[in-house]
Amino acid sequence: MISTANDLALQRLKNASPRFVDVKQAKDLLPDFDKYTILHAGPPIKYLDMCAPMQEAVHAALIYEDLAVDREDAKLLASSSKIKYSPCHSKGVVGPMTGVTSWSMPLLVVENTDYGNYAYSTINEGAGDVIRFGACTDNTIKRLKWIENTLAPCLKKVVDSYGGIDLTGIIAQAVTMGDELHMRNNASSRVFVYEIVSRLAQVNESEEFLEVIEFLTSRNDQFFLNFAMAANKSAADAASNIPGSSIVTAIARNGVEVGIKVSGLKDEWFTAPAPAVDGLYFSGFDENDSNPDLGDSAIMEVNGFGAFAMAAGPAIVQILGIENTSKAFELTEEMTKITHGEHFKYSVSTTNFSGLPLGIDVMKVIESNITPAITTAIAGKEPGVGMIGAGLSRVPYLVFDKAIRRFDEVVQELYEK
Amino acid sequence: MISTANDLALQRLKNASPRFVDVKQAKDLLPDFDKYTILHAGPPIKYLDMCAPMQEAVHAALIYEDLAVDREDAKLLASSSKIKYSPCHSKGVVGPMTGVTSWSMPLLVVENTDYGNYAYSTINEGAGDVIRFGACTDNTIKRLKWIENTLAPCLKKVVDSYGGIDLTGIIAQAVTMGDELHMRNNASSRVFVYEIVSRLAQVNESEEFLEVIEFLTSRNDQFFLNFAMAANKSAADAASNIPGSSIVTAIARNGVEVGIKVSGLKDEWFTAPAPAVDGLYFSGFDENDSNPDLGDSAIMEVNGFGAFAMAAGPAIVQILGIENTSKAFELTEEMTKITHGEHFKYSVSTTNFSGLPLGIDVMKVIESNITPAITTAIAGKEPGVGMIGAGLSRVPYLVFDKAIRRFDEVVQELYEK
Repeated sequence: MISTANDLALQRLKNASPRFVDVKQAKDLLPDFDKYTILHAGPPIKYLDMCAPMQEAVHAALIYEDLAVDREDAKLLASSSKIKYSPCHSKGVVGPMTGVTSWSMPLLVVENTDYGNYAYSTINEGAGDVIRFGACTDNTIKRLKWIENTLAPCLKKVVDSYGGIDLTGIIAQAVTMGDELHMRNNASSRVFVYEIVSRLAQVNESEEFLEVIEFLTSRNDQFFLNFAMAANKSAADAASNIPGSSIVTAIARNGVEVGIKVSGLKDEWFTAPAPAVDGLYFSGFDENDSNPDLGDSAIMEVNGFGAFAMAAGPAIVQILGIENTSKAFELTEEMTKITHGEHFKYSVSTTNFSGLPLGIDVMKVIESNITPAITTAIAGKEPGVGMIGAGLSRVPYLVFDKAIRRFDEVVQELYEK
Repeated sequence: MISTANDLALQRLKNASPRFVDVKQAKDLLPDFDKYTILHAGPPIKYLDMCAPMQEAVHAALIYEDLAVDREDAKLLASSSKIKYSPCHSKGVVGPMTGVTSWSMPLLVVENTDYGNYAYSTINEGAGDVIRFGACTDNTIKRLKWIENTLAPCLKKVVDSYGGIDLTGIIAQAVTMGDELHMRNNASSRVFVYEIVSRLAQVNESEEFLEVIEFLTSRNDQFFLNFAMAANKSAADAASNIPGSSIVTAIARNGVEVGIKVSGLKDEWFTAPAPAVDGLYFSGFDENDSNPDLGDSAIMEVNGFGAFAMAAGPAIVQILGIENTSKAFELTEEMTKITHGEHFKYSVSTTNFSGLPLGIDVMKVIESNITPAITTAIAGKEPGVGMIGAGLSRVPYLVFDKAIRRFDEVVQELYEK
């Protein structure tokens, strides 16, 4: 029974056909959502328990929403009972790093045409003092407004004019171009611009186009990450809620805890303290400055990308602080030991077109004592510092230990029925 | 003495710093050139000896230059004594496939800032009935005129506004993105567009910009090849004419003969019959339809790219008709046996950042009996058919045998002085 359930989960992950179909504000998309609800990365957490960058991102969101006039005002409101907090994942959203998502933010809408479900992500803000790394400056708010008022409408016109843009093709190209698609989106971001730029120019006014194309091509190597995250969330959601399946359908970090979800265990989170990230720090920073693991972007690993796909992009070792590219091949090989199959749509040319290791099986993690690796950015623990490096983390064994115990109970109940 | 000379040649190849600095018509750039001179790929050849695609490309050039009214008229003129023919290489030019280059054609100007020399190439025409594959239709001529009157001025405005564009950075990025840069320029062409698109829009009228960006992003995966060829020609020329050096400075094919040049042997060509290409044919074609090896693009292999760089882009095996990517790694490894060093600027992430094998040494080819491999497009032997596949060729041993004999004589003379 478990094996059949896992086969079905794997099939859903494999068959996912993500299409970028719309850009709409969160308020027009999300269920059980209002202006006083703030979404965040990772498993559930209260405002007072959040890491500082996430709290600061909440402040920025409240100012952006005109619910607070400044940071002090925002702090008071954020800690009051007026504001409700929910994981992005609970609304079909995935957000990189702090993941803070609010009422007016435009979201990328990705349809999984294979299964008919939808997933969402904010639009990547580029580099600098960005909300995803916990910045809350005038510039942070100004950029969010520009994304809402200029970038989002321009992108919407493009996607409307195409009637949707297939993301599988872009992702497949990027995997042959050295992207593992979590920490390295250099190729995918360039391929995306290349695919849409002509249409972007055709369907928009010249002034808006000039602003948008300047933004897309300036220090914006991670622009495609949010598309890829929503694509993989749409795949993972299709593989969720399959009775008897031990396949992982979410890995997410809120900077304090890391949590996973398992297909056969519905919406239950299994959590443990978020680990430190072993990585390479930008000049002037070290591990004492770093926040524990943060962000919903580990949805990439759930679907075979990130650390699981390092063999496709071994150049990534340079920014992760790993000396030798052999580690990239070893990690992908290691991850095949905890996955249920291979992703035939995304193959690795450096290993003779083997598919990405796909479908993390809680049982295999327990049996092998191998935990999923994640390629990830490192956020400064002080708010506003931003990205201070990149590295590798491991999902703690504890979350799988908790999950397998619950899984055993649930499977027992299934058999008894 | 030979070793020192080869070290110097290698140093010149390594230090080459190609910058795209201008776009100008051939007439304003080339020495000893007039409207009745037609340049072609490969070693010297007479019109009547040319392969059919090259002859047809000459006809197209004569019509494009308003020297002939139609193909019949062009045939008569082409075979008359009025038209002179020279290898592109003799004027600092490199041309893909037929390489046919004439008076009015705009050329990409690449400066090797390390050595101060210049090299040139035409602008890539994209896919379809193009002159480089020997097409001569109304559309071929129309596209050439459009390149002259619209694309070239737009690109010139961009490069002028930057004061030159470094090509090393684009090439280095592309090598980490799976391009071997001869048959696969998917990444480099996308990176190039990404780098310039914002400026391209800023400095051009909207209408021209729309036409140009549509052209650049439509079936134009090889657009960057011509930049890369000129870049490598500028490197190879800097490494030329070093007394006592046995390093190869040109490999070029005219569709009938393949020829090489050697640094210590100045401008002398050493030739042999052009080999057939072992490859994968598009549907409906086979080796009986193919023209022997053609084009100056083997300048890529002279500088460590193409077949020498297949380990950087093993996905290329799919379009070359090779079953297993291990062949890609084997070929790069094999080429290290006939090269004098490594290219430190362009490293291969799949093999732990080893540099591209650089500087083909005629002596090593003779000693090892390993001849340089080339990744190449296959042209139909009938004019106008165009590209019918892609594959691998080998430079015949005979050209090295001829070169080493002459090299021995010349070195002997040097010692006697």
